[in-house]
Amino acid sequence: MEKRLSSIAAGIKPVNTVREKEVQAHLDDLTKPKGSLGRLEELAKRYVLITGRDFPPIPRKAVFVFAGDHGVTEEGVSAFPKEVTFQMVYNFLRGGAGINVLARHAGADVFVVDIGVDFDFEDAEGLIVRKVARGTQNMTKGPAMTRQEAIKGILEGIRLASEAVENGFELLATGEMGIGNTTPASAVTAVLTGRTPEEVTGRGTGIGDKALRKKVEVIERSIEVNMPDPRDPIDVLSKVGGHEISGITGLILGCALKGVPVVIDGFISTAGALIAHGISPYVVQYMFASHQSVEQGHKVQLEHLGLTPVLDLDLRLGEGTGAALAMTLIDAGIKVYTEMATFSGARVSPGN
Amino acid sequence: MEKRLSSIAAGIKPVNTVREKEVQAHLDDLTKPKGSLGRLEELAKRYVLITGRDFPPIPRKAVFVFAGDHGVTEEGVSAFPKEVTFQMVYNFLRGGAGINVLARHAGADVFVVDIGVDFDFEDAEGLIVRKVARGTQNMTKGPAMTRQEAIKGILEGIRLASEAVENGFELLATGEMGIGNTTPASAVTAVLTGRTPEEVTGRGTGIGDKALRKKVEVIERSIEVNMPDPRDPIDVLSKVGGHEISGITGLILGCALKGVPVVIDGFISTAGALIAHGISPYVVQYMFASHQSVEQGHKVQLEHLGLTPVLDLDLRLGEGTGAALAMTLIDAGIKVYTEMATFSGARVSPGN
Repeated sequence: MEKRLSSIAAGIKPVNTVREKEVQAHLDDLTKPKGSLGRLEELAKRYVLITGRDFPPIPRKAVFVFAGDHGVTEEGVSAFPKEVTFQMVYNFLRGGAGINVLARHAGADVFVVDIGVDFDFEDAEGLIVRKVARGTQNMTKGPAMTRQEAIKGILEGIRLASEAVENGFELLATGEMGIGNTTPASAVTAVLTGRTPEEVTGRGTGIGDKALRKKVEVIERSIEVNMPDPRDPIDVLSKVGGHEISGITGLILGCALKGVPVVIDGFISTAGALIAHGISPYVVQYMFASHQSVEQGHKVQLEHLGLTPVLDLDLRLGEGTGAALAMTLIDAGIKVYTEMATFSGARVSPGN
Repeated sequence: MEKRLSSIAAGIKPVNTVREKEVQAHLDDLTKPKGSLGRLEELAKRYVLITGRDFPPIPRKAVFVFAGDHGVTEEGVSAFPKEVTFQMVYNFLRGGAGINVLARHAGADVFVVDIGVDFDFEDAEGLIVRKVARGTQNMTKGPAMTRQEAIKGILEGIRLASEAVENGFELLATGEMGIGNTTPASAVTAVLTGRTPEEVTGRGTGIGDKALRKKVEVIERSIEVNMPDPRDPIDVLSKVGGHEISGITGLILGCALKGVPVVIDGFISTAGALIAHGISPYVVQYMFASHQSVEQGHKVQLEHLGLTPVLDLDLRLGEGTGAALAMTLIDAGIKVYTEMATFSGARVSPGN
């Protein structure tokens, strides 16, 4: 299984930038001062280069919400009880959660993936069961999962990306749900960026000062107990990660492999992006960082990856909500690129 | 005419916040950690309070693009020739400009208002002729317009807002086109905020260092020659403003009078917001600041008004493009408010 992942990673190529000048020339010929649509132009340019299409249509979009449970919730790291994970999966399936509303707003489909929830769901439309395990183990007492489980989760994510692309989706986004999952996300971030747990740990869904100190301590202990190897991203993922982080890692790798752009949501999703980046650094070229989360470790993650977020709206919900919103701006950039008149065509005098 | 404006200004009331707790309680009952949708929640709350509606539908939206010419272009303050103003009006009417693309994206109608273009347009769908004059005078040599012209432009803007509301529009946005208009916008901003022209003058559509120094000098001279009275916003508007700034001022006042929210675009629009704020400080309560423009004076304007922009995308096009994009986020906020499930309804356990 590890061999298969290695061969997939080796298949990921950098984005072909040979058309960059031509794309820039088209942007500069649109009836506006050069560069005056700022980041919309950058989004359009990156989208065109990643997809390799001339004048791309508005993409068919999907948000994958990976759900998983966390043994570490035993340590009291979250403001919400663990059963909220499965309850929220039902909320997603009924269309009542934040991600449902914002994905509808963006014109994106939502797929909920049970990658590791400690609950058995019946079949339901929109639910994809790819369960690796019923939650992770308590990482303060040993590894969150086995190495094989981590790889299995990643391969499931890659498979989901491939299937989505085969089904005609052209722009994917990562999202997640898992009570307690800012704790493994902080642990992964600390190990892979070399920061202290304190620097990259925030309040998650909204814990107080005392619980925050406890959470930092839990992360420190998990790292001490497991000694994850920062040079081996799969070791880090398995020891102090989570199943939804595995799925996200895979979805990103799968997108890069297929040459499809992927929008990264907030803190937990970007922890997956760090793992994916450790497996193949080229993946960053396929990523759009959707927003700057309130979680303090998110800035550290984005700096590590060299990404600048599109939005800064004080979001800290996760689920893919920031990614769904950013998709609307990528669409806007594509429309600017494909629908605006050119100076020559519109008989408008060019500037100096 | 001045009396009529005074009586309109006196009719503008603060937003009624008596329902604020109730609106906040609904936001806190939605299936997400409290406050975790950040600024979307703030947009929703403000929208609900301004409109006074319980569960508002997605608003019918319109962007008003005020076009005008500027005598000060004689001084070489812009990278583009003056005829681009009327050429771009034709581009708007054909649907090929940035604002057309982004307003379509936002589901907003575009109305182009000839408030002061130095060109005679034939009748055209989407063009509203409310011409106050064929451009302003060169403000380095005397007032840009008469006091009566400034008031006339404001009253036209108010009338446009009233007509739009009567026609069923529920969310309006300001936009503009006018080669040279960052120069009067900087002059208005310097006078009304007490900053030096240098602090609030940027590169507009993209002038070089030498032209920027010249532009600052032109603004300094205009202020010296005209001595606008900072305590009298109409004096400032008439002496160192522009016709499109008058129209924007009026549109904002008209929205506040009718209790309708108004989205403010970038630097030139916010100069209009400063004038409107000088006429009635309550107008700020009806405003949404759409984005942080690249123009350096824009930050000063927003701080003066106490507004925080929704987006920061390095835009500097104007036309209403930033406002159109921000409208999509206001829509997203409204949908969160009206479409998300509640904890009680969704059987999800609430947090601590």
